[in-house]
Amino acid sequence: MKIAIYGYGNLGRGVECATLNHPDAELVAVFTRRPPETVKTALPGTPVYAADRLLEFKGQIDVLIICGGSATDLPEMTPMLAAHFNVIDSFDTHATIPTHFAAVDRAAVETGHLALISAGWDPGLFSIARLYASAVLPNGQDYTFWGRGISQGHSDAIRRIAGVVDARQYTVPVEEALSAVRAGETPVLTTREKHRRECYVVAAEGADLARIEREIKTMPNYFADYDTTVHFVTLDELRRDHAGMPHGGSVIRNGKSGFSGEHTHTVEFRLALDSNPEFTASVLVAYARTIHRMAGRGSIGCKTVFDIAPADLSPLSPEELRAHML
Amino acid sequence: MKIAIYGYGNLGRGVECATLNHPDAELVAVFTRRPPETVKTALPGTPVYAADRLLEFKGQIDVLIICGGSATDLPEMTPMLAAHFNVIDSFDTHATIPTHFAAVDRAAVETGHLALISAGWDPGLFSIARLYASAVLPNGQDYTFWGRGISQGHSDAIRRIAGVVDARQYTVPVEEALSAVRAGETPVLTTREKHRRECYVVAAEGADLARIEREIKTMPNYFADYDTTVHFVTLDELRRDHAGMPHGGSVIRNGKSGFSGEHTHTVEFRLALDSNPEFTASVLVAYARTIHRMAGRGSIGCKTVFDIAPADLSPLSPEELRAHML
Repeated sequence: MKIAIYGYGNLGRGVECATLNHPDAELVAVFTRRPPETVKTALPGTPVYAADRLLEFKGQIDVLIICGGSATDLPEMTPMLAAHFNVIDSFDTHATIPTHFAAVDRAAVETGHLALISAGWDPGLFSIARLYASAVLPNGQDYTFWGRGISQGHSDAIRRIAGVVDARQYTVPVEEALSAVRAGETPVLTTREKHRRECYVVAAEGADLARIEREIKTMPNYFADYDTTVHFVTLDELRRDHAGMPHGGSVIRNGKSGFSGEHTHTVEFRLALDSNPEFTASVLVAYARTIHRMAGRGSIGCKTVFDIAPADLSPLSPEELRAHML
Repeated sequence: MKIAIYGYGNLGRGVECATLNHPDAELVAVFTRRPPETVKTALPGTPVYAADRLLEFKGQIDVLIICGGSATDLPEMTPMLAAHFNVIDSFDTHATIPTHFAAVDRAAVETGHLALISAGWDPGLFSIARLYASAVLPNGQDYTFWGRGISQGHSDAIRRIAGVVDARQYTVPVEEALSAVRAGETPVLTTREKHRRECYVVAAEGADLARIEREIKTMPNYFADYDTTVHFVTLDELRRDHAGMPHGGSVIRNGKSGFSGEHTHTVEFRLALDSNPEFTASVLVAYARTIHRMAGRGSIGCKTVFDIAPADLSPLSPEELRAHML
């Protein structure tokens, strides 16, 4: 299948690298809103074009992987591009998925294209894990723990404080809560009991560290409801020790069975990711395969990961899957 | 949907109890090869009929859940019954799945029925976990650890030794190996390095315990390749401490991404089950729902869990799923 990348940040770069491990994915080009000559691709020789030249490539791209941000890029880009290509995105604003779905579905159905939104790990593989576990164990309790991992939104929130030069924030599951849930317990947990927040902050010379720490810890929504620790580090330390983009977490469901619910079962799906954007990119390429196949079977409109049978994700044939993977 | 149970052992009983948690599953009847009046059902009032009366119920059963053994029952039962009903089984002899699939597919296609084989957790949810992880991370290494849980086959093998009154055998993952794999390592592991075997044995009065222990530990295929511990217990102790049927395990894949595979990702799907048959039964009922839906859309032939989109497992509508579970 011929894929192209629309938007070249960390995620786009991850998709480019992921094609190395997916031999059936041929990368046609990267499209960028920056001047193309300023973009240095991860792989030598990847063609880069200005985004406004995309329509010249109609008919040459099987699946367009849209690598924009969920806040402002994707709500506009995905419906617009689904009118011209089969597309996939990683839209991750849970609350507005229904609106995004409707807009993309309309554009895709009207023009006979196939789209898949919200692929990645949450939403994405975590959502699938939640669905399977709740379908199998209807009488149960769900938990999602995120981390240990970098939250871009929380890191940005710290950077907006006066006197902060740079910062990284780790979301960390509270070990006691995670252990209890893993052991089959079904506690009612407050926000504070589920996650804590670890901040590494570079302050400007002479800045009031106590004030910065106080402003972080009392910030509504972002930090006030959590146990937050603040570590001041140098810019060199931040670059040396906190340059990566690890993330992950666990979806856990504890459910009951038996005549009177006397048996407990724990279902856990866990991810530990060295690179959040590269893993998300790997999920996008695997789902691009499903879009290509389903489009070939005449499917149109907008889909989510819930609508895709597992077999369509694999490069193996149904016979091979039954013989070797079932 | 109207379901019926064909075969009433631990698994059939589990399906009966699972209908308590699946309000859309109405249990029509249990069919048994024993004299029906000798069968005491888990729920009061469940109708029990002789297996040979099954065909009288054509048109009254949406999905027949076949709860037989994989060794001799299912290879015969599932194709035979797929000629008259939409059926589902938990056939778990991995090596002969292709043969079983072909036989069931033929019977179902010829008569316009829909069948699903090998539902459960391994094969079943574990297979799905393997497929997703390998599709997303093609450059990686797979591991499956089973246990701590009761292996029926190994327990039976011990019971066949002269002087053994009863026995239960636990398959236990080797903690060092499991920890290393969970931490992202990709060791090459021998059989002995992955699992150990714990046996609880009731010996006849006056039996030669040293001989029994030696016969267990040197038994080819079952125990010789493992570190095996043998504990002699009384019948009362066995009944008190080892009456349950717990099982579970983990499917783990460690895969690489990046320009030169510099980032590692760990994907783990873990189950800890108080009751192996009840959990398997819960999976069967959830998949019975998919069979009922897909049959309603005109689907025929044999399917596996790989062919079923997650959305078809859930009682929620696609809109509800997108709004609340994605």
